[in-house]
Amino acid sequence: MALVRQLFGHPGMSRADLAVAVGLTKSTVSQIVRELLEEGWLAERDVVVTGDVGRRPTPLFIDPGRLMLLGAEVDIESVRVVATSLTGEVLATVVTNHSPGKTAKACVAGLAAALLKVHAQLDPGRQEIIGMGVGLPGGVDEARAFLYVAPNLGWRDVPIGAMLRQKLVDTPLAGVPLFLQNEADVAALGELEFNSSIASDPLLYLSMNQGVGAGVIFNDRLLTGSRGFAGEVGHIVLQMNGPRCSCGRRGCAEALIGSRSILGTAEEHPHPLRELQRLVDEGDAKTLRALKKAGNYLGVLLQNLASAYDPGCIVIGGRMADLGDVFLQPALQTLSAYAEAAGLPPPNVRTARFGRDAVAVGAAALARYRLTRPRMRALDADLPVEDVD
Amino acid sequence: MALVRQLFGHPGMSRADLAVAVGLTKSTVSQIVRELLEEGWLAERDVVVTGDVGRRPTPLFIDPGRLMLLGAEVDIESVRVVATSLTGEVLATVVTNHSPGKTAKACVAGLAAALLKVHAQLDPGRQEIIGMGVGLPGGVDEARAFLYVAPNLGWRDVPIGAMLRQKLVDTPLAGVPLFLQNEADVAALGELEFNSSIASDPLLYLSMNQGVGAGVIFNDRLLTGSRGFAGEVGHIVLQMNGPRCSCGRRGCAEALIGSRSILGTAEEHPHPLRELQRLVDEGDAKTLRALKKAGNYLGVLLQNLASAYDPGCIVIGGRMADLGDVFLQPALQTLSAYAEAAGLPPPNVRTARFGRDAVAVGAAALARYRLTRPRMRALDADLPVEDVD
Repeated sequence: MALVRQLFGHPGMSRADLAVAVGLTKSTVSQIVRELLEEGWLAERDVVVTGDVGRRPTPLFIDPGRLMLLGAEVDIESVRVVATSLTGEVLATVVTNHSPGKTAKACVAGLAAALLKVHAQLDPGRQEIIGMGVGLPGGVDEARAFLYVAPNLGWRDVPIGAMLRQKLVDTPLAGVPLFLQNEADVAALGELEFNSSIASDPLLYLSMNQGVGAGVIFNDRLLTGSRGFAGEVGHIVLQMNGPRCSCGRRGCAEALIGSRSILGTAEEHPHPLRELQRLVDEGDAKTLRALKKAGNYLGVLLQNLASAYDPGCIVIGGRMADLGDVFLQPALQTLSAYAEAAGLPPPNVRTARFGRDAVAVGAAALARYRLTRPRMRALDADLPVEDVD
Repeated sequence: MALVRQLFGHPGMSRADLAVAVGLTKSTVSQIVRELLEEGWLAERDVVVTGDVGRRPTPLFIDPGRLMLLGAEVDIESVRVVATSLTGEVLATVVTNHSPGKTAKACVAGLAAALLKVHAQLDPGRQEIIGMGVGLPGGVDEARAFLYVAPNLGWRDVPIGAMLRQKLVDTPLAGVPLFLQNEADVAALGELEFNSSIASDPLLYLSMNQGVGAGVIFNDRLLTGSRGFAGEVGHIVLQMNGPRCSCGRRGCAEALIGSRSILGTAEEHPHPLRELQRLVDEGDAKTLRALKKAGNYLGVLLQNLASAYDPGCIVIGGRMADLGDVFLQPALQTLSAYAEAAGLPPPNVRTARFGRDAVAVGAAALARYRLTRPRMRALDADLPVEDVD
């Protein structure tokens, strides 16, 4: 797959270019390219005629029309599924809202239905799904496709991968390689994989939904930590003895910048992110004040992420990022003030390339990442199927 | 070097064991072992006679007596140089105190003298230095052997590697591969390399001297960040608008747990760490109160490191760690309280294996790490020598 990775990054290379780039002989590269053309990974394009004489090298491209990926986001309020090309173009989308408190089992059934619905929108004769990924709001053991804990969903120890496999038995998606990972991690992979330029390293994706977490990629690897909890930056303590967090501790970032804390503790909203957006749209003065204060704390968190990881780029995403300048401007101002105080340039911060689709597209990127890196096998159909409530 | 790495971890393996472990044929392994025996990396030991018949496999070991490493720590108050075996046994030590405010040039001259002094203590006929490392209290570009900034020394943009090379021209250490890195990073490598069991991953070494920083190893690689500033965890902000830090920002960990803040701002000590130790030894009540408060903040920092990196182990080292329970107990209590509030086991924390020698031994480990991993070439004698004040 080294050739495919090379062409992902440098479309239009010839066989000869590829041989040099990956250090193989031209005849070996030609043989591999022939197989990849047959399998639908690559396409040849017409040669651009130049003034030079002799046979022109044929430029090779990843075929955008044949092989597809599915990516799914399971969040607190909805399931979002996309089909993408191998280079991240979104070809079909299905979003299903679900009510809070739904069981993992019911949610997995909805996820399976949404995956099949997106698949049904593709051209069955021409388009083939070669991998699918799921981003989950919690700690995930990717090798076991197992969710340890998703605090904002109230789930713990759920074998999501095996449950989803069971729901897909006897469907067109049975046997398609399946990968699961934390939602911030997959969003980070989306920024890494579907990027025609060389990605920053380390690359940090800060995901702010009901929970706050980060995906960190260092040296082409996800920093998952010793138990899958690395990047749980929503629980970096920003204020000793501060407000109580959903995790039980006090003064965590999530308790200072999360949607629930901005809305205030008096009322528990079933859909805090939607409610927050509504209040911002209405220009509610109390909410705008609370958002400014939370934005300042977001600036402190960004400063701390820069100190911890020295990322080449911090990408901000999630529904909280959609609130825009009213929340992000105070954060960037705080961050700039820290940089100025230290006489250093501020860290590079931008918003997510794929906006609302960042996690779903990132889940598709997870599948591409695992299929083009040899390190972890897919959760394949051999795995025993389980059914857990 | 895969064989040498294997034997570092599993002394006493036979050629046949090694062939299986590294996936080479027995004859290839025998050839490599023959060369390694000649070069002095390995030694054969006598076979233990068992009841079995036939020729017994000969156990192989890293030869502790032939090939040596040098490691140096440059800190605010002194230069410390050790010679170690390839497995981290300290064979000779030289410590030279230097006055604060010394120029980088004078300090490098003192470092070169100390390296040569340690070298002179070895057996010239039998023992050979195969690499040397230096740990520096600041941001380092390892590939260029260049120090960006060492705030507590007041140095900026110093080509330490080239300067040291120049001082070693026409000495027995001319041409010995030289490696430079941040002091917390090398101390983390010391915990990784000179460890007969498999090291935790990620492994985090928190170094607390006049400055506070961390070395983080993930997947056998140092997390150095996009500009060499990853792990600058002394500048994680623990208190918005808190006390002014030496970096210019407010509320950094270093401003809350560093020796200067504990001593108080009224008096500037030329040797704050020594002064702090003296006051603790005297049982000074004000100092003990300040240390307890600082220890609580250290607990918050440890919590934040656990959230950011999910390390398998946090190792605490540096002169501040030598203060012992009066400082560390409040930290561990705070950390345990956070874990209890979240219903999780507390992170695994221990003190440095090599105590006061952690950075110097770690610098020797850096040399071993680079010589046994193919990723980065040594700063060799070809490099132009420079002289910078």
